[in-house]
Amino acid sequence: MLLDVKLPVYYIFKRILPDILRVMLISIIFQLLKYFFGHYLPLIPLQLATILGSSISLLLAFNVSQSYDRWWEGRKIWGAVVNDSRTLVLQVRSFLQPEALSAREASEHLTAVAYRQIAWCYSLGESLRGQDPMPSLAKFLSEPDLAYAQAQKNRPLALLALHSTQIRELHLKQAVNTFQQVQLDSTLVRLCETMGQAERIKSTVFPANYRLLVHFLIYLFLGTLSLSLVESMGFWEVPVLLLIATTFFLIERTARYLQDPFNNAPTDTPVTAISRNVEINLKQLLEEPNVPAPLTSDTFYLM
Amino acid sequence: MLLDVKLPVYYIFKRILPDILRVMLISIIFQLLKYFFGHYLPLIPLQLATILGSSISLLLAFNVSQSYDRWWEGRKIWGAVVNDSRTLVLQVRSFLQPEALSAREASEHLTAVAYRQIAWCYSLGESLRGQDPMPSLAKFLSEPDLAYAQAQKNRPLALLALHSTQIRELHLKQAVNTFQQVQLDSTLVRLCETMGQAERIKSTVFPANYRLLVHFLIYLFLGTLSLSLVESMGFWEVPVLLLIATTFFLIERTARYLQDPFNNAPTDTPVTAISRNVEINLKQLLEEPNVPAPLTSDTFYLM
Amino acid sequence: MLLDVKLPVYYIFKRILPDILRVMLISIIFQLLKYFFGHYLPLIPLQLATILGSSISLLLAFNVSQSYDRWWEGRKIWGAVVNDSRTLVLQVRSFLQPEALSAREASEHLTAVAYRQIAWCYSLGESLRGQDPMPSLAKFLSEPDLAYAQAQKNRPLALLALHSTQIRELHLKQAVNTFQQVQLDSTLVRLCETMGQAERIKSTVFPANYRLLVHFLIYLFLGTLSLSLVESMGFWEVPVLLLIATTFFLIERTARYLQDPFNNAPTDTPVTAISRNVEINLKQLLEEPNVPAPLTSDTFYLM
Amino acid sequence: MLLDVKLPVYYIFKRILPDILRVMLISIIFQLLKYFFGHYLPLIPLQLATILGSSISLLLAFNVSQSYDRWWEGRKIWGAVVNDSRTLVLQVRSFLQPEALSAREASEHLTAVAYRQIAWCYSLGESLRGQDPMPSLAKFLSEPDLAYAQAQKNRPLALLALHSTQIRELHLKQAVNTFQQVQLDSTLVRLCETMGQAERIKSTVFPANYRLLVHFLIYLFLGTLSLSLVESMGFWEVPVLLLIATTFFLIERTARYLQDPFNNAPTDTPVTAISRNVEINLKQLLEEPNVPAPLTSDTFYLM
Amino acid sequence: MLLDVKLPVYYIFKRILPDILRVMLISIIFQLLKYFFGHYLPLIPLQLATILGSSISLLLAFNVSQSYDRWWEGRKIWGAVVNDSRTLVLQVRSFLQPEALSAREASEHLTAVAYRQIAWCYSLGESLRGQDPMPSLAKFLSEPDLAYAQAQKNRPLALLALHSTQIRELHLKQAVNTFQQVQLDSTLVRLCETMGQAERIKSTVFPANYRLLVHFLIYLFLGTLSLSLVESMGFWEVPVLLLIATTFFLIERTARYLQDPFNNAPTDTPVTAISRNVEINLKQLLEEPNVPAPLTSDTFYLM
Repeated sequence: MLLDVKLPVYYIFKRILPDILRVMLISIIFQLLKYFFGHYLPLIPLQLATILGSSISLLLAFNVSQSYDRWWEGRKIWGAVVNDSRTLVLQVRSFLQPEALSAREASEHLTAVAYRQIAWCYSLGESLRGQDPMPSLAKFLSEPDLAYAQAQKNRPLALLALHSTQIRELHLKQAVNTFQQVQLDSTLVRLCETMGQAERIKSTVFPANYRLLVHFLIYLFLGTLSLSLVESMGFWEVPVLLLIATTFFLIERTARYLQDPFNNAPTDTPVTAISRNVEINLKQLLEEPNVPAPLTSDTFYLM
Repeated sequence: MLLDVKLPVYYIFKRILPDILRVMLISIIFQLLKYFFGHYLPLIPLQLATILGSSISLLLAFNVSQSYDRWWEGRKIWGAVVNDSRTLVLQVRSFLQPEALSAREASEHLTAVAYRQIAWCYSLGESLRGQDPMPSLAKFLSEPDLAYAQAQKNRPLALLALHSTQIRELHLKQAVNTFQQVQLDSTLVRLCETMGQAERIKSTVFPANYRLLVHFLIYLFLGTLSLSLVESMGFWEVPVLLLIATTFFLIERTARYLQDPFNNAPTDTPVTAISRNVEINLKQLLEEPNVPAPLTSDTFYLM
Repeated sequence: MLLDVKLPVYYIFKRILPDILRVMLISIIFQLLKYFFGHYLPLIPLQLATILGSSISLLLAFNVSQSYDRWWEGRKIWGAVVNDSRTLVLQVRSFLQPEALSAREASEHLTAVAYRQIAWCYSLGESLRGQDPMPSLAKFLSEPDLAYAQAQKNRPLALLALHSTQIRELHLKQAVNTFQQVQLDSTLVRLCETMGQAERIKSTVFPANYRLLVHFLIYLFLGTLSLSLVESMGFWEVPVLLLIATTFFLIERTARYLQDPFNNAPTDTPVTAISRNVEINLKQLLEEPNVPAPLTSDTFYLM
Repeated sequence: MLLDVKLPVYYIFKRILPDILRVMLISIIFQLLKYFFGHYLPLIPLQLATILGSSISLLLAFNVSQSYDRWWEGRKIWGAVVNDSRTLVLQVRSFLQPEALSAREASEHLTAVAYRQIAWCYSLGESLRGQDPMPSLAKFLSEPDLAYAQAQKNRPLALLALHSTQIRELHLKQAVNTFQQVQLDSTLVRLCETMGQAERIKSTVFPANYRLLVHFLIYLFLGTLSLSLVESMGFWEVPVLLLIATTFFLIERTARYLQDPFNNAPTDTPVTAISRNVEINLKQLLEEPNVPAPLTSDTFYLM
Repeated sequence: MLLDVKLPVYYIFKRILPDILRVMLISIIFQLLKYFFGHYLPLIPLQLATILGSSISLLLAFNVSQSYDRWWEGRKIWGAVVNDSRTLVLQVRSFLQPEALSAREASEHLTAVAYRQIAWCYSLGESLRGQDPMPSLAKFLSEPDLAYAQAQKNRPLALLALHSTQIRELHLKQAVNTFQQVQLDSTLVRLCETMGQAERIKSTVFPANYRLLVHFLIYLFLGTLSLSLVESMGFWEVPVLLLIATTFFLIERTARYLQDPFNNAPTDTPVTAISRNVEINLKQLLEEPNVPAPLTSDTFYLM
């Protein structure tokens, strides 16, 4: 997540530089064409560029809006991660039957679920970003759990399977009754859904033909505009065109950043910071003494 | 799903070629009319074309947006397929009561549900694409299940009926208790809903009159534009008009591709790849030794 | 539902004919005014018409979008009809306890529920379209059920009441246990909701002042445009204005068609065809021998 | 709810009259300024007004769209009122255990719930409209219920509390079992939610700064337009400006009407008519002999 | 929440003043440039500014729409706070089993839950606004509850944990049965979700690059416009540009206000007033004698 303060200008512009340079090249070529073959070139009325411009502006505005929706959906999914993590621990904490478990056993079970849930958050974030989740898992899982997760390809799913195994055992020991098991299972269903939703956003690229179309239309519009300005503005056309190009490419680039919220980039949804918050909340619910501090950032973004 | 890499230009342009040719014909006819009957033709102000142009641009932009929503809804539905497939297997795995079934029976039941669920995913995708689902079913179903599915017209619904029969049997044997049966039934309810949602998108064509309207308006706009440019630009009008026509038809075509996500075309939702992922996940949950690799693509799309 | 093939042009144009004729009259009156009082008339700059044109275009585009959402909501509601009809039958089929009912009794109960559910679908569609649902009911209901439905004003609600009575009886006979009764009741809750949603769309006309506003603004825009074109284009103004008018009235008409999806018109949601599909699915689940064919159409629409 | 027929023109225009008069004043002032200080005034290019015009058109179109969403949300909430009212009565009707209650007691309980639910609908509508709900309550509630509701500030909430007390009593008498109590409670949860949603729309005015902004921008745009037309059109500028002003104020006013659906105005959601429909449906489910007729209207709106 | 009456003009304009001054500076610099280097400056056609203007208008309109959605989502979340607070108290009130608790104990338990829930509402609002929630908590919590909440970082979560502990105790005493415990737990799940949703909106700033982009584009557009007006309008350009600038910055500012609904500012969602309403409702359900009055405002906003 980009922070409101300290956002460096170079970060915003560096990605659109190649496009700007290409547009500069095009506009210089048109200048040369005009210089050498001026009277063979068509006189393109500026209104044509206006038509194309309003058409591509609309498409871009909708594109930004769709990208924003994707970004917000990604953030909502991680909001659900937080909510159901807290819910799961609150539920286990309030469901365990005292007659079936000693206080220590109950506390161990609760701790195991809470730590595994923290591990689930970190590992889901790391899987989405294409990082190796095993180091985070090692911090929070027991040996056998770690071995099981290691053997499975989809680590967050493996942790849900371990949750469900533990709840099964608690039920068989009558430490949770049948209704409580089903209620806990409903929480697991939601976690499984949330995980799938995050994977869906990650694995479904924004329609490639749509992306290409927008990019192609910006060039088409800038080319037309260049041709119709070259006549009336002379060499001033080059800086003016670059300014307009900057506008449109910046909008397009902003849309792109929003489209991919789990890309291991500064514009990501801050999944590590969110997982840290879950860790803090759950450890406080366990009444543990040393709770980590929230993740802060001394740069212009928060991961 | 089109992939970001290797997307060939011919694929994008081939479908709009007939429209472009038709527009070329129209613009040549206007050239000839102007040549022979020039002073009888009206002088259409370019601003009229601007009005029509902004009107059709708006309609197109909304159309793309509605089509994008349809596409994303299709993708979400298949996300729910993944989530509930995993959930179903996690639930059966954690619900089976050890006192009612031997370990082997439990494992057989779990495997039957998981394999049938994999079959359900593949067959749902194939039904949506109008392909024959029986070959996929044969790989994952037992003999009697296969015979039952063969006899029914709606194969994915038949598989849900088989799931529900098996859960009924498990309940009668007391291998799942009543609450668990109801919880499993809730998962089946969601699967039934998901299936119906996918069928709905497949069977409901985008409103035909709306589609036609957009197509007709593009032609109307291009005709008006042609008439108003023919005077001022002479023969340069033809290539310029074709460029503008390309813009508008490309946008329309992109919207069309997004409208039909289960069309057995490269722009489809990648239902086969998704089903393969479900297969991988479920087989790993069964701890099976030979799990297939994810579907990859050496062309420009993933099915 | 209009089909993609065979859509006749007259169907699209016939409804906007009166508006087009009115616009023709207006533009001829302006021609005459100009002819007789030319130098008293104001010179309206074409840009004024552009401002109005872009304003009304925006409103129309949003209007089409809202209408499309209504249409899609209507279609989604009927998707839920399909899903919950299948779910209800799958649930009854898997819940009936063998120790409480003989196989024949169980089958009779299941058949009664399934046939009543088919009747519910047909009668809901017919009520929405203002048709008499009794003939369809007669085909699927028992004598006493038919008499009860006959006596009630809201027939689909009467059928839900009969469903709920039958489930109550099954529960009192212990043919379904309490949890299963509640789970079946949840399905009835959803059916009741779906029915109410369809009635809501039917009974809530699109805001009449909004509709009128859009209609009035199109005329205002065309009048302004006519006045500003009459000077520059002479008699060519009439055909050009009609073309523009056609554009805007066609868009408005398309929006109107989408607003009312249960109007007993070719642009309706195909509720009869959907009900037929439910009939096919449910009869196949009952393993009945003679299942009807899906509804097809030899005209340009499917009801 | 405005009806499609008989909508009087004066109703639509009366509210925008003050704004129109103010605009007339402004434009006359500009005429005088021009007449006396003509050569000191700036020549504002019409394109500036176009830029402002398209900006305010966009804002207005989005505003109408957000207002429409609010209106539709209000209508959906009242759709949920209908659905859950029917559901509640269907549930009580099918849940009451014959062994715990005599047929007469059962019928009395059912009638009490149904009548209280009817009262809830009417009183919710009247509270939203700022009317006194007590007269409606008196028609449907028993003495003690009426006294309790009288003593509470939020009457619909008081009725839900009475529902919940009655269900508690039925449960203590074992006339509904525990699962059924929880299922009935779920219906109460939904009713409580629906009530809160309606109150939310009522109590949350559309953001006042946003409303003001739109109003201010329309004046700004009309002023700019007036200044730029005064030069080119002379005294014709006044009627032309009024026409444009009418357009924009009508759109704004339509948005305002849609924003407040519970305002005791003809543009309201027809909550009384909807409550009457609930009364009809519930009395028919009770098989009562004298069921009232649906509310009709002999004016241009339905309350 | 800003109130419709008494909204002072200075409040709306004070925040955009720095931007307006900056624009004035820019436009004066251009005036000077023109005065001294007039014939070196490019002649920028006004249509270029139109293209940029319609592009930034679109982006702004969408931005306002996204901000409005955020604002409405924030309000919906607080609507859910109200609904589930009422639901929780209605449920506890109707679930407590008379045979397990004396009337006084039952009443004490109910009061404890209701007061803690009131405290939860206030403290959630205060946490979101960055205020210290402890003073409000002290008014409504028992000593041990207060000590527990004091020790935890996330106070609203601590209160939910206390709710869940109390429900656990009631269950262990058999004062609520298992189904009722699970139903109460479902309400806690929703409260936990609502809390997380509010925190999500608070902690997720609107994408900073998107915000910056919009701000930058407004300046770019105003610069271009200034350059193209300076030639044709002379010194009148300055006031005209400021007017246009005011328009665009006001729209941007309105969007900003809507984006952050929990900012301890007059444009906030009125969380204190809403919490007060919850307090009134819950105390009335407890039939307490002294119920506070709703929060009113003698200024232009309601907190």
